[in-house]
Amino acid sequence: MNVTFSHRLSELRSRKQSVLCVGLDPDPARIPISLLSGNTPEQATSIFCRDIIGATASSAVAFKINFAFFEALGDSCFSVMRDVLAVIPDDVLTIADAKRGDIGNSASFYARSVFDDLGYDSVTVSPYMGRDSVDPFLGKPGTCAFVLARTSNPGGNDLQLLPVEGELLYEYTARKAVHWAEGLPGETGLVVGATDTVSLSRLRNQFPDTPFLVPGVGAQGGSGKDVMDASGDGPLLVNSSRAILYASSDEDYATAAARKADETRISLGS
Amino acid sequence: MNVTFSHRLSELRSRKQSVLCVGLDPDPARIPISLLSGNTPEQATSIFCRDIIGATASSAVAFKINFAFFEALGDSCFSVMRDVLAVIPDDVLTIADAKRGDIGNSASFYARSVFDDLGYDSVTVSPYMGRDSVDPFLGKPGTCAFVLARTSNPGGNDLQLLPVEGELLYEYTARKAVHWAEGLPGETGLVVGATDTVSLSRLRNQFPDTPFLVPGVGAQGGSGKDVMDASGDGPLLVNSSRAILYASSDEDYATAAARKADETRISLGS
Repeated sequence: MNVTFSHRLSELRSRKQSVLCVGLDPDPARIPISLLSGNTPEQATSIFCRDIIGATASSAVAFKINFAFFEALGDSCFSVMRDVLAVIPDDVLTIADAKRGDIGNSASFYARSVFDDLGYDSVTVSPYMGRDSVDPFLGKPGTCAFVLARTSNPGGNDLQLLPVEGELLYEYTARKAVHWAEGLPGETGLVVGATDTVSLSRLRNQFPDTPFLVPGVGAQGGSGKDVMDASGDGPLLVNSSRAILYASSDEDYATAAARKADETRISLGS
Repeated sequence: MNVTFSHRLSELRSRKQSVLCVGLDPDPARIPISLLSGNTPEQATSIFCRDIIGATASSAVAFKINFAFFEALGDSCFSVMRDVLAVIPDDVLTIADAKRGDIGNSASFYARSVFDDLGYDSVTVSPYMGRDSVDPFLGKPGTCAFVLARTSNPGGNDLQLLPVEGELLYEYTARKAVHWAEGLPGETGLVVGATDTVSLSRLRNQFPDTPFLVPGVGAQGGSGKDVMDASGDGPLLVNSSRAILYASSDEDYATAAARKADETRISLGS
């Protein structure tokens, strides 16, 4: 029997009493200085991420790898990413936060890279180019394509709140994206920012069974309690990146991250 | 004096009598078999791209590197890309076709990678996350961020043709994106597919001085003559990928690509 991404997520939530996703955004300018002496930036990034994973994996149900920070490493981007992915335990799901979005032919190459080569469980995808740009990410059982619906950044308002055909663009987009997955092996998830819990609540009412990836708690200012109230019982991942990664800039960064991750897990309830 | 991207483009157009952009989408399944024997897929990709560049650079004013096909190579992605970029002559502009789109903090890392590390002249960017996801790509004089407006793929109709506030979403998006660049060192360009010349013509009337990147001629079915008629005299790049790269699947692939590229250049006029 094929187990869906949302079933895996629900099982982990129940077992670990957690909806926490830890976002790995390793910024060389914020990695503890002790790691940078005697190591290349690539080595320091790898050690930092592996230490954070070791320290927070028991509190998290997912790790979200932000491709921007790895691609900024240059040629060793994917080998460092592979080192990092290798230490993620089986009881934590992985998200390729790469915001993919291209025509079908190109999208199928990106999907192969993310799911088959790198072995991710899920990926973030941009909806602007429509169905054939998303479909190639819906081809593998047990995986999920998190489509951007309502994002947490200031510019999220520029297009996403436009009224279209009696609803707002983000709702229209979400409805289309959920529809696109019908009959395909993968699942659609939605990215819905923590900074607009009205939108979050509206989307949850319409899509009670769709996995939501909710960034924007912590450094971006969203409240964990408000997110949980708006999210109901549906499949959920609440992401925190910087607040956990940089809980301490000293040598105790891993202990501090572990503490902060578990505090966040508990504050979110489950 | 800083020279803008569109000035460089106009100067090259006039000098080379060309608006042709050659798209590098190296698909290992379509690379001539002769290259694959005795070479790794990475080596074959590198040789193939370098031969295509050598054969077509005199006909082209830009090369568009499709990140999907390089990322599918795995760990050597960026080193192969760097090999390929190294042989592109100074009189051909480069486009990182990566469809970037993320919150400001992440976008600034992507921008650094594309412009500073890899040294591209321009990049494709998705508008769905709004202004702060595009702004970091507008920070460098002489460069251009080609924002997706009206794409050539079938799914391009899903969101882009929605009526919003008295116009269509692609027009609204284009207007916003051009506005975002005001006062910034970089330029906004627009991606406008060759398969909808009505949209192309509408956008050109509104944005006579904005660089347009027009994919979809050739394998995707757009007509070169219709594109030129709709594009007027504004800054323009017309992309062709597969029709040139795979003009022959035999050992004469470079000669065939050279011939096809020059035919395309001439058929587009300038």
